[in-house]
Order: sequence, then structure tokens, then C-alpha cells
Amino acid sequence: MPAFTVFKGSKDGSVVKSTTTKSDELTGDFVRLRVTASGICGTDLHYLKQDMVLGHEGVGIVEETGPDVKFLKKGDRVGWGYETDACGHCLECLKGEEIFCPERAMYGYANPDQGSFAEGAVWREAFLHPIPDGVSDVDGAPLQCGGATVFTAVHTAAATEVIGVMGMGGLGHLAIQFAAKMGCRVVVLSGTDSKKSEAERLGAHDFIAMKDKKAEDLQNVGFKLDRLLVTTSAQPDWSLILPLMATRSKIYPLSVSEGNFSIPYMPLLANGITIQGSLVATRSVHREMLAFAALHQIKPVVETFPMTEAGIKEALEKLESGKIHFRAVLVPESK
Amino acid sequence: MPAFTVFKGSKDGSVVKSTTTKSDELTGDFVRLRVTASGICGTDLHYLKQDMVLGHEGVGIVEETGPDVKFLKKGDRVGWGYETDACGHCLECLKGEEIFCPERAMYGYANPDQGSFAEGAVWREAFLHPIPDGVSDVDGAPLQCGGATVFTAVHTAAATEVIGVMGMGGLGHLAIQFAAKMGCRVVVLSGTDSKKSEAERLGAHDFIAMKDKKAEDLQNVGFKLDRLLVTTSAQPDWSLILPLMATRSKIYPLSVSEGNFSIPYMPLLANGITIQGSLVATRSVHREMLAFAALHQIKPVVETFPMTEAGIKEALEKLESGKIHFRAVLVPESK
Repeated sequence: MPAFTVFKGSKDGSVVKSTTTKSDELTGDFVRLRVTASGICGTDLHYLKQDMVLGHEGVGIVEETGPDVKFLKKGDRVGWGYETDACGHCLECLKGEEIFCPERAMYGYANPDQGSFAEGAVWREAFLHPIPDGVSDVDGAPLQCGGATVFTAVHTAAATEVIGVMGMGGLGHLAIQFAAKMGCRVVVLSGTDSKKSEAERLGAHDFIAMKDKKAEDLQNVGFKLDRLLVTTSAQPDWSLILPLMATRSKIYPLSVSEGNFSIPYMPLLANGITIQGSLVATRSVHREMLAFAALHQIKPVVETFPMTEAGIKEALEKLESGKIHFRAVLVPESK
Repeated sequence: MPAFTVFKGSKDGSVVKSTTTKSDELTGDFVRLRVTASGICGTDLHYLKQDMVLGHEGVGIVEETGPDVKFLKKGDRVGWGYETDACGHCLECLKGEEIFCPERAMYGYANPDQGSFAEGAVWREAFLHPIPDGVSDVDGAPLQCGGATVFTAVHTAAATEVIGVMGMGGLGHLAIQFAAKMGCRVVVLSGTDSKKSEAERLGAHDFIAMKDKKAEDLQNVGFKLDRLLVTTSAQPDWSLILPLMATRSKIYPLSVSEGNFSIPYMPLLANGITIQGSLVATRSVHREMLAFAALHQIKPVVETFPMTEAGIKEALEKLESGKIHFRAVLVPESK
């Protein structure tokens, strides 16, 4: 019985080393892989006290394939994200929108014995995404959730749109790059000016330091946002942001948050604004995202940590205090 | 100087008779018309204390045309709604989305000396909509705002969508008819069963009496809503409604309301739901709505009142107490 090391949440919120054992024999289209990199996402922090293997931004190398595997072979590099299975027969699956399948297997809800903070994993081929040449394992990992999430929200934009990115962290710094390479004018909304030069390096055209800004300061800045990706964990004060929004613009709240989404009612109607709920990527979009990242050499800015109890602890603490620049990636210690 | 009778709001909220005088000579593409019917809309109640002519669901007959009028001629029947002018040069105007023009002339904000509670009016030809044969003046009036508002929200639906209509009043009873004629399955959400048979007569396939319903009652009713038009003046309890909504469904809040639009955050994301701000109709959609209503003999259910101080008072009081069945229309006393 092949066993592999995994790292789990625990009652007191500390990450503990454990072992997952899978059958000798792979059934169906299951693939056994060795993890070579795992991103750490803000949502991992929500599961620290759960008895489940953490991590959902995995990249690995195929080690063994089940009898029904058709496209992957030993040695292939693949990634996986939030969703690792779906029913295949519901209307959403049939429409290629399996991310909304009611039986979807999602991180935090299914397969608590597996995750990307691990030595290995066994997943269905159908939910593993080949990593294009030119994208390294470490760069590929944050694309599996962070990249997929922002690409889903931005890839339907016309090149003529003005795209706002609120928050420049793990998600925001990828959104800037995707939108800029799509030809869009990119406006970063950040707390202070501290990240301005890096935002510009990543492709931003405009940068607004929001601290102490009032609604009237944002009324006549020379552009309006056609689309706004909200990547901050705290919800913004919408009465402050709405003067920046174009008529018929779209707002994408992307970070996990509790409570209500709440926005002034009449400006929403009078300006024909859309609030668009959005969730990582369905598989086709995930693969287009990887191809787009490879073509345009879009790379996350990462800090790497060893995939050990100590390394994970250090990375999570740094993430929790908002000091990761901009995405943490765990890398197995060389053997 | 041609003068015509108008009915205005006033400080104490009573409607008073007054006179508007316009120049003898019509300039540009302006058209003088005689009002033959005016709908009364819930938003008229918001302006009762303003010194402005009320009404924005007008139908009338062209009496005289300005030098640049190209298509209308004396005797033509036309209607107008919330918007009576726009700049014509901004991007929204150029895109045919002049309802979002920043310089749009909208009821309540522009032209306080004119409205549809009046004997006559002078408007630009460009914002007057020919009433198709087969649509009477009285039936045409409520289409100019109520019809335009719900048609805008529903006309982009696929025929395969399940359309929810929350609230069966002036807007809701038109939404049922439009959606049913589009081939959609129509579900009415109403307080009690009292309007059920009439909803079915108008084309509804399902009817849910919401009183005393709990979220779990709405979980497995055999369908999910792909689109929901909220026409009630009070905002619903969204935690109750969300179990009825399909993944990737759209919510259209349509009635005027104060404060915030507020909805549970995570279900919005997890189900990929869209909240769509929407506003009456841009002109092309307005005209398509009139053609669709004529083709399918979609008619508002109306109560008529004389266009006099007493008639308007009675209609507004009945509207305020929620007793209009389903749209009030003012008709000039025959001379």
C-alpha cells in the first residue's frame, strides 16, 4: 500500500505531519503523482483547525496511471486546484461549467485525506491540468487557484475595458498581469503608495492609494472602471468606490468573506452595475489560463518555503500577518 | 403661446392643477402632442412633494412637429417614458445605451414643467416611440415605464430559462406575460395564494405563496430560478430566496428602494450568481418591447381614472395602499 506524507490542520490550529495511504492499484482514470510545489492560499488559513490535509494549489509529476487514463503518462507535469471531481451528468457539467456541479468535489468539502501540502496525491486525470513548457513548477502552483480565480473574472473582458484591481497580494498581483497582457488599462487600488512601483512593473497603468481618499477625490480621476476585481479580504466601503465605477460596469468580489455583500441600492440600478459572483475556474478556463500565462510569461512573485512542519508554519504565519510577497510556495526538501 | 394643463406635486403632497406654457414655435425635432393616456407608476409617489409635473408613462397624439422632425407627423400615436433626452455624443449614447448617458434627461431630474399627468407635452421626436397598431392608448401607457423596465430585465433570457417574478403588481403582472410569451417557465412568488388564478391566466406555470415559507421549503420544489425579477417595493429576505436560485442565475432588483442591497456573500460566490442593476429601457429595447407586446397581445390589467385633481388623488391613494389592480391609467375627460 503506497503511503505518502501529508500535512493536516489540527484542533489547535497547528499543522501536523501525517500519512495518507492509498490502494496499490489505481482504478479508473486515477493518477498517482509526486508533489513538486504547492502554493499557499488565503483560504488555507480557514481550514487550519480542521482534521484535513491542507493545500489546493498543487503541481506534481505523474508517477503512475490508472487503466482508463488516456492522455497523461509517467513523467508529465500537472497541476490541480480547488476542484478535483464533478458528477459529469448534471446540466452544469454538460455545459462545461462543472465548477458549479452540485456534486463537485471541492477543497474543504471533499477528500480530507488529500491536498497539496503533501508528498504525493491521487486524483482523477480529468481534473489534472498539464503544465505548459516554460512554466516552472513553483510558478505554476499559485496559478492553480489564485491565477484561476482572477483569470475567470478578467478573461471575458474586452481589451478596451479599464480594469480595476483592488488589493495587491496573491490574487491582485496576478490580476494586474493578466489584464495588462489582455490589452486592458489596469488601475490598482491599494492602501498606500508602497506597492506602486511594483504594480507598474507588473503592468499597471494607474495606481490609486486609497488611504484617506474621499468619494469626491475619486469622481474625476480621468477614467472610470469597467470591471473591478476585489481581492482584499475586507470588503470595501462601496459608497467610496462607486464614483469610480463606469455605467454598466462589473464588480467581482473574489475573496472569501463572511456575512453579507452590501452595496448602495440606487446607484447599482441607476448605473446598471453588475455584481458578479465568481468562483475559481471551470476546467476549460483553467487550461486557457495556463496557456495564456505561458504565452505571455506571466509569473507569480513568490517566496518559497520548505514543505516541512516548520516551513509551513513559517509561511502561514507570514501569510496571516499579510507579509507574503506575494504568494508563498512550498517546495519539497531535496532527498 | 400655447398653454396646457398639467398636474404637479406640491409641498403638502397634494396634486395641484397648473399650466405650462411653451413657445409658439417648435424648434429642432421637437413635437407637440396631446396626451391621451398616462400610467401611474410607484415612482410617482416619490415626487408628490416636489414642485414638478408628475407622470412618465405618457401616450399621446402628435399635434404639431418642429422643422427637423423626420418620421412623425400630425395624428401619429406616440409614447414616452422615463427618458426624454440624452447627449448623443458620449460613449453610452454611441453604443445605443443612452439610458446610461451622463447627461440623460430623466423624470424627476429634468424638465420639471412637463410630465404625462397633463393635457399636452413637447418632447424631442428622438425620444418618442410610435405605438403599434393593436395597442390601445390606455394599454400602451403602462408599457412606457413598467413594461420597459421588466422587458429590459427579461428580454435577454433564453427561452429555456426559468424566470421568477417576485411581486405581482404593476411591473410583475407584465413580467409574467413577457416571460411566458418568450417561452420561459414562469414562477410567481407572491405573499399569499390570492393572486394565483390570475397569475396562471397571465401565463405563469408555478405559483409560490411566500407567507410563512422557510428556506428549507424552497429547497426542493422541482425547479430552480435562472433569473429573478424583484418587483416588490420591500427587499426580500435573501437567505430565504437563495435556495431557489440556480447556479449562475441572475437577480434583477427593479423597484426603487433606499439604503443598501444586501445579500449573503458566500452563496453569491459559490453559486456564481449575478446581481444586475437595471433601469427602464434604452430606446431600441423600448421599441422592441412595444413590437413584442403588439405581436403577442400583451396587455396591462388596468384601472382607469379621470385625469383631474380628484381622479389623480383617488388613483394615488389606491396605489399607495397597494390596491390598484394592477396599473392605474389616467384618461382625459372627453371634451
